[in-house]
Amino acid sequence: MTAVGVIGATGLVGGEMLRILEERNFPVSQLRAYASPRSEGRVLATKWGDVACEVLRDGCFDGLDLVIVDVDDPLALEWAPHAAAAGATVVDNSAAFRMDPDVPLVVPEANPHDVHNAPKGIISCPNCTTIVLVTALAPLHREFGIERLVVATYQSVSGAGKPGMEELSEQWTKFDGGAEQLRRAAATPGVIEPGEVWDRPIAGNAIPLAGSVKEHGYTSEELKLVRETRKILHDESLRITATNARVPVYVGHSMAVNIEFRRPAAKAAVVELLAAAPGVALADGGDGHPSALEGAGIDPVLVGRVREDQSNPGGIDCWVTGDNLRKGAALNAVQIAELVIR
Amino acid sequence: MTAVGVIGATGLVGGEMLRILEERNFPVSQLRAYASPRSEGRVLATKWGDVACEVLRDGCFDGLDLVIVDVDDPLALEWAPHAAAAGATVVDNSAAFRMDPDVPLVVPEANPHDVHNAPKGIISCPNCTTIVLVTALAPLHREFGIERLVVATYQSVSGAGKPGMEELSEQWTKFDGGAEQLRRAAATPGVIEPGEVWDRPIAGNAIPLAGSVKEHGYTSEELKLVRETRKILHDESLRITATNARVPVYVGHSMAVNIEFRRPAAKAAVVELLAAAPGVALADGGDGHPSALEGAGIDPVLVGRVREDQSNPGGIDCWVTGDNLRKGAALNAVQIAELVIR
Repeated sequence: MTAVGVIGATGLVGGEMLRILEERNFPVSQLRAYASPRSEGRVLATKWGDVACEVLRDGCFDGLDLVIVDVDDPLALEWAPHAAAAGATVVDNSAAFRMDPDVPLVVPEANPHDVHNAPKGIISCPNCTTIVLVTALAPLHREFGIERLVVATYQSVSGAGKPGMEELSEQWTKFDGGAEQLRRAAATPGVIEPGEVWDRPIAGNAIPLAGSVKEHGYTSEELKLVRETRKILHDESLRITATNARVPVYVGHSMAVNIEFRRPAAKAAVVELLAAAPGVALADGGDGHPSALEGAGIDPVLVGRVREDQSNPGGIDCWVTGDNLRKGAALNAVQIAELVIR
Repeated sequence: MTAVGVIGATGLVGGEMLRILEERNFPVSQLRAYASPRSEGRVLATKWGDVACEVLRDGCFDGLDLVIVDVDDPLALEWAPHAAAAGATVVDNSAAFRMDPDVPLVVPEANPHDVHNAPKGIISCPNCTTIVLVTALAPLHREFGIERLVVATYQSVSGAGKPGMEELSEQWTKFDGGAEQLRRAAATPGVIEPGEVWDRPIAGNAIPLAGSVKEHGYTSEELKLVRETRKILHDESLRITATNARVPVYVGHSMAVNIEFRRPAAKAAVVELLAAAPGVALADGGDGHPSALEGAGIDPVLVGRVREDQSNPGGIDCWVTGDNLRKGAALNAVQIAELVIR
């Protein structure tokens, strides 16, 4: 039995985390929840009894075996080491430690054994988009060796938490006069004003920017996809380029993936590997077209539109979609915790 | 002055066509509009006077110099030759004649001179996605030679006409209880039922299927992008792969484009070419992130997120978005007509 703490328990991913611990019958001996001072004392009903949210303070992790962190990078950077120093194993969902060479970055379907090499007592959970992608690609990399990836993402607004979901929701309510009004609104600059989370309206829009612009014009989200995928697959020679975009989808990150392999891959072999892959569900034997909504609320990552790339013999095109709050965050963190206590 | 007929005048693109003929002061001596029997006699107000819709019948094109067609493929296949036989030059927006070797396929910014090689009297207007893509790529192909393209599209529902826009609109009205309800709805299969146009809900979704599945698992829309791009650029060796997806955007087709060149391209040179390219507007000098809404309702195709591909030296990643009803259809057709009468 495990004494578990969850930091960021009242957030979108935090809530999902508590649900998934329950669903998977995680062996919890004691559950403690940490949140911002605004939520101090708020009571969360769980199958292990009511839990009152505490604020973070010195000594707050004493007696815990496992602490799961889902807060922003600065807060994680500050508090994860406290939890580790108190003797807990830390599973951190933030980006704070992901590229630290002394912190393993784990997708259990791809590199489960890395959890045992955590000298700082911290294990990082990758970015939501990276997790969905790597869950699908890991078996293909093992068999054929991925040479290069060209990825285009269709990311949901819940990747920006509750504020992202509310911003989309508020903008949609302005759209209520049917298609003709909507068409005019769409074609008239200024009719739909941008909100707080994105600098463009997200309702009825596709915005080719997730995160902020960094080196070579790539965004922080695109660089996470590139660097984290290499670290998880233990292959720094992997060539990856990505364009990450935001679409008016509430939950579910999707991506169009073009793969070049070191050893040519036939569709039949790829489909066979994916059909047997843990954490993956093939849509209609790989020929289906799984939409973002179909992947939302379930555990497996859905793969479809599997095709032999007609522009590059031996390569593969496919579509991957997964729930960014579950497999892309909370579920992956709980799976890591399960490996730790095993 | 030109006697002009528009077939499909009451459709989404047909309406745009009439607006664009007016905006561009097309030299119309006489305007005639053709529609389905359901719309016979319906009066359209234009700057050249009221025009009553006629139905298609033998001899209905007598005296016309130019006939612009925007109806489905079977109807275009039947009636475009009648219009040509009556002595009119036909500009056809359907897919019926696009791959016919005796019918030029024209994006005026890319291959304007092809309009003069139309032995059947028919000139085809490409698919909406193809037009947006080729407008941006033509100057780059001329300078560096495109070797290979990997394209992922974010296509709007107006690509499926008024029924597509109405389907999205109707589904959105079921979403009215804020983000938490929406999240639950998204995660609960069956809460949002699919409609008539798409076999999945399109509200709050991303569907990786546009058109129907054909050879090698590619869809009709993906194959159009591949084949039409080659024909317009007069380069059958061009290697292209595409994944075309539908997103809950009303107007504006966007795409993430990865380009491999025959001669290495630096970002500065690409930006310089695009800045001078007709029909193209660079967002923030190529560093911007033009969303679909920004490209809707305007003439130029917007290009942004221009980056040197870090996975392939000499290659370029970018984002292209354009109004699928205007440049992607009606505007391109009117531009072709302008070349014809010049």
